Amino acid sequence: MSDFNDLPAHVWPRNAQRQEDGVVTVAGVPLPELVEEFGSPVMVVDEDDFRSRCQDMAAAFGAPERVHYAGKAFLCKRIAQWVNEEGLALDVASHNELKIALAADFPANRITVHGNNKSNNFLTSCVTNGVGHVVLDSSQEIELLDMVARKHGTVQRVLIRVTPGVDAHTHEFIATSHEDQKFGISLATGEAFAAAQACLNAENLELVGLHCHVGSQVFDAEGFKLAAERILGLYKRIHNELGMALEELDLGGGFGIPYIPTDTALDVNAVAQDLLHAVQLVADELEIDPPTVLVEPGRAIAGPSTVTAYEIGTVKDVVTGKGDVPVRRYFSVDGGLSDNIRPALYGADYDARVVGRFTEGELIDARIVGSHCESGDILIEEDKFPSDVASGDYVALAATGAYCYSMSSRYNAAVRPAVVAVRAGNTKPMLRRETIEDILALDVD
Amino acid sequence: MSDFNDLPAHVWPRNAQRQEDGVVTVAGVPLPELVEEFGSPVMVVDEDDFRSRCQDMAAAFGAPERVHYAGKAFLCKRIAQWVNEEGLALDVASHNELKIALAADFPANRITVHGNNKSNNFLTSCVTNGVGHVVLDSSQEIELLDMVARKHGTVQRVLIRVTPGVDAHTHEFIATSHEDQKFGISLATGEAFAAAQACLNAENLELVGLHCHVGSQVFDAEGFKLAAERILGLYKRIHNELGMALEELDLGGGFGIPYIPTDTALDVNAVAQDLLHAVQLVADELEIDPPTVLVEPGRAIAGPSTVTAYEIGTVKDVVTGKGDVPVRRYFSVDGGLSDNIRPALYGADYDARVVGRFTEGELIDARIVGSHCESGDILIEEDKFPSDVASGDYVALAATGAYCYSMSSRYNAAVRPAVVAVRAGNTKPMLRRETIEDILALDVD
Repeated sequence: MSDFNDLPAHVWPRNAQRQEDGVVTVAGVPLPELVEEFGSPVMVVDEDDFRSRCQDMAAAFGAPERVHYAGKAFLCKRIAQWVNEEGLALDVASHNELKIALAADFPANRITVHGNNKSNNFLTSCVTNGVGHVVLDSSQEIELLDMVARKHGTVQRVLIRVTPGVDAHTHEFIATSHEDQKFGISLATGEAFAAAQACLNAENLELVGLHCHVGSQVFDAEGFKLAAERILGLYKRIHNELGMALEELDLGGGFGIPYIPTDTALDVNAVAQDLLHAVQLVADELEIDPPTVLVEPGRAIAGPSTVTAYEIGTVKDVVTGKGDVPVRRYFSVDGGLSDNIRPALYGADYDARVVGRFTEGELIDARIVGSHCESGDILIEEDKFPSDVASGDYVALAATGAYCYSMSSRYNAAVRPAVVAVRAGNTKPMLRRETIEDILALDVD
Repeated sequence: MSDFNDLPAHVWPRNAQRQEDGVVTVAGVPLPELVEEFGSPVMVVDEDDFRSRCQDMAAAFGAPERVHYAGKAFLCKRIAQWVNEEGLALDVASHNELKIALAADFPANRITVHGNNKSNNFLTSCVTNGVGHVVLDSSQEIELLDMVARKHGTVQRVLIRVTPGVDAHTHEFIATSHEDQKFGISLATGEAFAAAQACLNAENLELVGLHCHVGSQVFDAEGFKLAAERILGLYKRIHNELGMALEELDLGGGFGIPYIPTDTALDVNAVAQDLLHAVQLVADELEIDPPTVLVEPGRAIAGPSTVTAYEIGTVKDVVTGKGDVPVRRYFSVDGGLSDNIRPALYGADYDARVVGRFTEGELIDARIVGSHCESGDILIEEDKFPSDVASGDYVALAATGAYCYSMSSRYNAAVRPAVVAVRAGNTKPMLRRETIEDILALDVD
């Protein structure tokens, strides 16, 4: 029995296991049965895994409402309901994400609104629904939101998104804290301080805190700490020069998660202690109560909870002409970059296992590809798969809960997969599989 | 008046022009009016441009049915109808693309079916609907299709997709002719010849030709020629050893188009003459009539026909800390990687112009970004924009007809834009704009 039959516990959902007959279950539900019932691919969310990660983050940072679930990672009404039941706050980054949250009766006062280009309509919806925080991203937005709030006779609680000039060690595409980027207001140029002054002068805005975000899929705890130290410098300046001890500090997040066995999980408790300690030191220095630290763990809640299961179709040995991999076996699955664009977009890695049975063959060079008409439609570029894997086998990729469904396309007229929640042996569909009728419904005759 | 007010003719649709009042029209329809009517962004297809490019390709290769429109570039029922009316053939690469074509009453005998992982269901649909060609992509598929055709008592016309080992000069993600890739059957290893033998032995397959494809967005005419020469070598071997003069040679395509002013259009007539000449030489040598040359121009038909128009929202000057671009002005539009992922996915370039008025300001360093919650959500990484461009201006990107809508996502719960056709001053919606209700319709309560 090779290691290929293992399910690395730090990568797979907490309730995934391989049964004695070789079939992989999540929360007691066999994955092959889900593929057969809901079609291939199917995305399977381990509800208790998702909820337990909400609880872990709440414990690390002291209270659930300090932890903001990232709607952009994966949002539908059911997810919003889970996040609400766990008491977390919710980040939304678009008007439609806000609408989904409200459709799920998520309490508006626990919603934080992000975005570099919030329209008048979107801000009006924030104000009239009473969202907890709007994160101001530009000086232009300060004026616009103040005007919108005035028009509706309310005062909107706001944070200022500050770019602290920290470049966390992450993939270039998803690094967000260097200066030459669209988000935030610069700390270094003094614009962030000026924005704080502008907020204080704006009658219909209540500045409650500062926000920063060092990146996404970040493993380097030093990046969080350095960003926190810089933003605390601004916090002190606002305290000393404007006479204001802000209540809150949103230190972002984007905590990295392990995608493959060699990845190590970020120690979130250690990060939390570092950040809380840094904030406490400044509070002691200023002789004030420490501001409440808010965090945005990003993919760290949704990501590990989910697997995507596919059926293998064509199997092909390709003579590559390369010395290190003279022959590569290509396994095609009936999905690909439409349901998971992260490998093509970010060079992201995933862990794939056969989930319908034990495999026994020697490990050979393999590549897992999708069915799309594009040679870059690759799910796993370099892998080792047992030689006995064949057409009709079921294979699943772990840690597909974040930025897979939410970035999914209909390339080659692919339909979005069904997403189902599993818990204690029960299956509850969350999002139905699309159909060709959904696609044709947009055609105007 | 700066050059920024020009619309480079080789990049913009053939019927795009800037009026005397500064407003840009396509086929006589002002783009600002379309944004106001259909929302921002809106995709505008110049119908006569699209049809004229169909006709140009038909003229270059001798007959419309030899030219295959790439459904994957952009397909809906209206597009299938246009392609049908122009007499072209249609490539589909998935079961659902086939369904869209059939829903538009596209004649099945002019449909060519691609795909590296065609399921039994998909092949059954090909056979029962009588598609003109199935392009066989693996030895496994030869057996499967023969079995499916036998079951339905028919003989299916097939091509063999051959990998000729030519690496055309194009972006790595979309290069498709090197050997270490999922598509095709290798020429060099002899597998392609063996596949031809297998087809001849399969009672329910009729081998009518060979197929190859050197890449996508290809400008290097030598790549096409070299691939053609190699595949003609196989053609000769099949003629000499198996006694069979195949009727057809599908030499693929993926012809490059200009996206930015400094790009030069590929001379398709010269490519056509080169290819037809190479084929004629072999026919002369074998003393046979030359096989019919089929081509797949890829994006070259749909791509240049379309522009995407957006409204500008937030405008922000960012001090970059970089010597060459000390300050960059960020223009946010209300779309981005959801409606055009090509810049993020391929590093693709686009030409953007303000389309609602003349601009006059000096040119400054600019970046055009979308509204998504991701710093990589960039439509144009480096541009020069006039300093008087402001929030509320309309901007359009040219050459967005291929692989934009077809790869579009709902990231951040974005709705897909409306797509409208314009012709001789008239506007006809083609695909309606999605709504939040479309998104919520997938939620299972």
